[in-house]
Amino acid sequence: MQVFIINPNSTESMTRMALKSAQGVADPGTVILPATGRDAPASIEGFSDEALSVPSMLAQIREAEQAGAQATVIACFDDPGLDAAREVAGGPVLGICQSGIQAAMILSKRFSIVTTLPRSVPAIEDLVQRYGASGHCRRVRCIDLPVLSIESESQQAFSLLVAEIERARDEDGAEAVVLGCAGMSDLTDALTRATGVVVIDGVVVAVKMAEALVGSGLRTSKANAYAYPRVK
Amino acid sequence: MQVFIINPNSTESMTRMALKSAQGVADPGTVILPATGRDAPASIEGFSDEALSVPSMLAQIREAEQAGAQATVIACFDDPGLDAAREVAGGPVLGICQSGIQAAMILSKRFSIVTTLPRSVPAIEDLVQRYGASGHCRRVRCIDLPVLSIESESQQAFSLLVAEIERARDEDGAEAVVLGCAGMSDLTDALTRATGVVVIDGVVVAVKMAEALVGSGLRTSKANAYAYPRVK
Amino acid sequence: MQVFIINPNSTESMTRMALKSAQGVADPGTVILPATGRDAPASIEGFSDEALSVPSMLAQIREAEQAGAQATVIACFDDPGLDAAREVAGGPVLGICQSGIQAAMILSKRFSIVTTLPRSVPAIEDLVQRYGASGHCRRVRCIDLPVLSIESESQQAFSLLVAEIERARDEDGAEAVVLGCAGMSDLTDALTRATGVVVIDGVVVAVKMAEALVGSGLRTSKANAYAYPRVK
Amino acid sequence: MQVFIINPNSTESMTRMALKSAQGVADPGTVILPATGRDAPASIEGFSDEALSVPSMLAQIREAEQAGAQATVIACFDDPGLDAAREVAGGPVLGICQSGIQAAMILSKRFSIVTTLPRSVPAIEDLVQRYGASGHCRRVRCIDLPVLSIESESQQAFSLLVAEIERARDEDGAEAVVLGCAGMSDLTDALTRATGVVVIDGVVVAVKMAEALVGSGLRTSKANAYAYPRVK
Amino acid sequence: MQVFIINPNSTESMTRMALKSAQGVADPGTVILPATGRDAPASIEGFSDEALSVPSMLAQIREAEQAGAQATVIACFDDPGLDAAREVAGGPVLGICQSGIQAAMILSKRFSIVTTLPRSVPAIEDLVQRYGASGHCRRVRCIDLPVLSIESESQQAFSLLVAEIERARDEDGAEAVVLGCAGMSDLTDALTRATGVVVIDGVVVAVKMAEALVGSGLRTSKANAYAYPRVK
Amino acid sequence: MQVFIINPNSTESMTRMALKSAQGVADPGTVILPATGRDAPASIEGFSDEALSVPSMLAQIREAEQAGAQATVIACFDDPGLDAAREVAGGPVLGICQSGIQAAMILSKRFSIVTTLPRSVPAIEDLVQRYGASGHCRRVRCIDLPVLSIESESQQAFSLLVAEIERARDEDGAEAVVLGCAGMSDLTDALTRATGVVVIDGVVVAVKMAEALVGSGLRTSKANAYAYPRVK
Repeated sequence: MQVFIINPNSTESMTRMALKSAQGVADPGTVILPATGRDAPASIEGFSDEALSVPSMLAQIREAEQAGAQATVIACFDDPGLDAAREVAGGPVLGICQSGIQAAMILSKRFSIVTTLPRSVPAIEDLVQRYGASGHCRRVRCIDLPVLSIESESQQAFSLLVAEIERARDEDGAEAVVLGCAGMSDLTDALTRATGVVVIDGVVVAVKMAEALVGSGLRTSKANAYAYPRVK
Repeated sequence: MQVFIINPNSTESMTRMALKSAQGVADPGTVILPATGRDAPASIEGFSDEALSVPSMLAQIREAEQAGAQATVIACFDDPGLDAAREVAGGPVLGICQSGIQAAMILSKRFSIVTTLPRSVPAIEDLVQRYGASGHCRRVRCIDLPVLSIESESQQAFSLLVAEIERARDEDGAEAVVLGCAGMSDLTDALTRATGVVVIDGVVVAVKMAEALVGSGLRTSKANAYAYPRVK
Repeated sequence: MQVFIINPNSTESMTRMALKSAQGVADPGTVILPATGRDAPASIEGFSDEALSVPSMLAQIREAEQAGAQATVIACFDDPGLDAAREVAGGPVLGICQSGIQAAMILSKRFSIVTTLPRSVPAIEDLVQRYGASGHCRRVRCIDLPVLSIESESQQAFSLLVAEIERARDEDGAEAVVLGCAGMSDLTDALTRATGVVVIDGVVVAVKMAEALVGSGLRTSKANAYAYPRVK
Repeated sequence: MQVFIINPNSTESMTRMALKSAQGVADPGTVILPATGRDAPASIEGFSDEALSVPSMLAQIREAEQAGAQATVIACFDDPGLDAAREVAGGPVLGICQSGIQAAMILSKRFSIVTTLPRSVPAIEDLVQRYGASGHCRRVRCIDLPVLSIESESQQAFSLLVAEIERARDEDGAEAVVLGCAGMSDLTDALTRATGVVVIDGVVVAVKMAEALVGSGLRTSKANAYAYPRVK
Repeated sequence: MQVFIINPNSTESMTRMALKSAQGVADPGTVILPATGRDAPASIEGFSDEALSVPSMLAQIREAEQAGAQATVIACFDDPGLDAAREVAGGPVLGICQSGIQAAMILSKRFSIVTTLPRSVPAIEDLVQRYGASGHCRRVRCIDLPVLSIESESQQAFSLLVAEIERARDEDGAEAVVLGCAGMSDLTDALTRATGVVVIDGVVVAVKMAEALVGSGLRTSKANAYAYPRVK
Repeated sequence: MQVFIINPNSTESMTRMALKSAQGVADPGTVILPATGRDAPASIEGFSDEALSVPSMLAQIREAEQAGAQATVIACFDDPGLDAAREVAGGPVLGICQSGIQAAMILSKRFSIVTTLPRSVPAIEDLVQRYGASGHCRRVRCIDLPVLSIESESQQAFSLLVAEIERARDEDGAEAVVLGCAGMSDLTDALTRATGVVVIDGVVVAVKMAEALVGSGLRTSKANAYAYPRVK
């Protein structure tokens, strides 16, 4: 099985990290096909960053499917262009925010999300609402650190994440925490160990759910809203 | 006052129609600055059409503000890129779907929406939910005619719209109907006359609300979610 | 255009303030027709105050429309009798709470409201829910000062409002603040300057939206729920 | 125990009917104190009828409590002035819509409501939402007959009600039906027999819940929103 | 009238307390039939405790109805097996959580709940949602004391409850507090006196509502979801 | 990996069918451990059937985990005892209703569910709400055939299912259909072929999601609500 994983921003080190996370959990028979956003912002930190990353991402998804990809994972926690991607794709398309939230709704009664910047909080809250998790998500928190600093200042990022996860546990009563940025993926295990909290990385879950849906023989419905774009 | 009205698709006749609707209601002191989407699909009929239209629209909004525009109206009923537009703009940004819905919530207790294609129905339902109108909107209906056919087959479009508005009134108990496509704007008065229903055109309302917000001395909050994009 | 603005309580100085706010933003061609509640409580601070103010208000709206008013603004943040007013009126009827909330949903992703007394908080929360803004309104706050003290102890009121708006910004992450009392209208600009927050006054916005709806050629639907009262 | 039952409209025959229904179920030790609205519309059929009935109702509730009433039932399905009544009353105040809905949520999983006029449907839907029953109430239906005609044309009313209750059962899957008008109270048993459906009359339930709350030693909280009106 | 009150856990002293509370408010003509869970956990503190208590409870309800019970009260705040109980019973079945919440929605605009253990908080929040009270319930709080300790360490329990009720009043703006455990029933009056807050005990309210519904001539609808179990 | 699949009713042929479906999609390295409900009803058709099946199911899950199972699938569409099962289990516990719904939310914008008996409709609607899919699920439909008849009268069941799936597509605009009974599992492929609709079988999806979560290294959070039952 081939699973396409697209990092919609242009930072290749983030693609490599997502690839590593994906390969760490993929089935032996799964080939992970990674890609980095073309003509995209260096990070997705707001609505216009999202918007600028989507057109090339849609083209890349089309190319990946033509090259044999059976499912797609969008490795950015804002799930940019998720509906549009499902429209152009035949296989299942997984957003790491939706996947992380779905896992959290199975593994806990109440969870919180920890993301990077304050400006991302309302956007993620909107996704929580859209994915039907308003009653299950206690709070969307942030560490007030830009996306790219998670890699460049990883020690500080780790400390801030540990503190915020513990606040989620203690103040929110969160029983699990979803990491709110693809760039936090490689910290998951260490954060779990440091806090004792069930920490969920959307990249890992989305890759496994992609395998699960392909393995179930299911593809994106082309009946109406996700029908291929009309030719005009 | 200068109000920028962007038709995010590439069909210039639709821009002209929106301009005409806007000028028909604008205050004497308001200059309407129209624009047509660059590198955009000929019509917005689905999520990927939306996605492809947004990047150039954001650039055009920036240019318009630099040229003096004090408010922006996005003349497409899917409100494509509305959050992103508010991020790059300083003045208020009005979506015609949100504006039409807000007017309908003032003028009636229950309303329906009539759009073009079936595939647009779930997308508009999502907007209804996002704008807080789930309890007020009886139903999102469609006439099953492509956007561009409203102009090219205007007689048929008119007949279908009359029939669907009457169904909204009779079957849904809709007290008002919001037209679910910018391309229906010039039919508004005739539809009102033909059906006796309060028919709301988002283009008209959005232009007037743009004037109202500018006249109130209000601009888009730059405090957090709609702050200008970070420079990276 | 003639816009009727009714202060439903019996305190004439509040009517004068609302008139001044309205005139400060009205179009040159708009005449503001002010009125003070007859046989009404001196302020609206609770559900029975609301109830007692409505019957005369309905009569005054009828009289104003007969005298030529094309739209009505109810200048009390509880939006007392809003549905009933829409029933007796032919033109659009704007509540300052609904108008302030609609503006806040355009200009920000998340906002808070600051009102006077604690007892008004649940009533306003109910309006937030009714207007579809539960997901957008972070919190309804109060300064614990009676309505009439905002005028009589304006220095204290101003200080309390500044402090509460800053708490909304800092604790709630509010990107805009809606003032929750018509009596705060003349403090809006000073509050904006003092806090740097986008502060929204419902009186100003409602007057401009009234102009906008009349300018759009729209009137209250008389189809069902807002049909004129039955003669019995 | 003394229970005050106020018919907020001015039609005395409706008061007598409510009294009869109340006395038919009241405990031996309960005295029902009936009252008819003063200066009120002949029936409550819309928002302004509601508004006009409330001021005198509030005065009558105060008088009744001074005369010894321990609880109040508002015998009109729009629950007019319910919040205001709770503010001026010390004892529990029961609305027949809320009471009927609460009973239906105990006795069935899904219910429908059958009221009089189409214009009342959105108002009652708003109450369903406010009382938290949106997920339980299948549909608010109407027989399109004015309130006063239920008495004057009782044979026709009965036939229409039977037909509508059966539609609720067959088309909505309603497991119970709440009668949406105090004036239908004396038809309840006959409707139950004719349709086999669990038919719930809010007047009866509200009177029994009034007894239940007084018997529980509970009174309206005067802590905040329902505190007695401020003296100004 | 005979009202069956089942304490679904196996601790007889809790049954005796519920019986005492019930008898303290029951009408003179009401006989309270108490029962203790057979083969049930000593207390209900979580989902599996709930599950283990239900099968025998259903059998006991059947037996009680055969012995003449006209209504059933489930005296555990998790309302375990409430839907199933309504399926096997012909008379009304009252859960003390639903009853307490319904009373709180009549007597206040905003209330909080105070339960025993943190693990019960999400379960009760789910019930709040299910009973339509999400907009009315400020917060579900706990005193972090096991159910059985309320009796064995009653002095400590009382102090913790007083403190938590006061926090609900001061931090949540709760106008009433619902006690979130049947085992707190005998503390109700003392808690009311100590805090000045309207404290609602679900056991008391449920018994009175059971009387009210039987007195209204109403029984559980057997039309669909609560039809008696199919014989297979 | 060992995945425990429990059919909570006592009908062994249904267990065999679930086993077959599971084995048809399981990874080569996955061992499916099937079990049939002990002392359970022959089918789960209502709330008391659910309740009676749970206690033994909880014991069987404990035994299965002690025997090495790393995840559990409850193969009944009512998801009976799902919260309780997560409390007693260490590994992830998947309900086929939640799994089917989660898949449908990924593969379509709008879906419907087709179950067996009318009495199951409200119960499944409650699950739809609980899993956050109210905005995505168009309608819960039924074919009015008992669970056990799907096997015994499979030809009739198939025809009824085809007709109902087509109604979901044509009347609801459903883009996918979730089968609302474990007993329909072996008809999935034929139904997909017969209707052209994306038909989702919860058994298949739940097994694959179980593999996915175990493969992600995730287990049920034991932090609060799903902590192991307290020892008393």
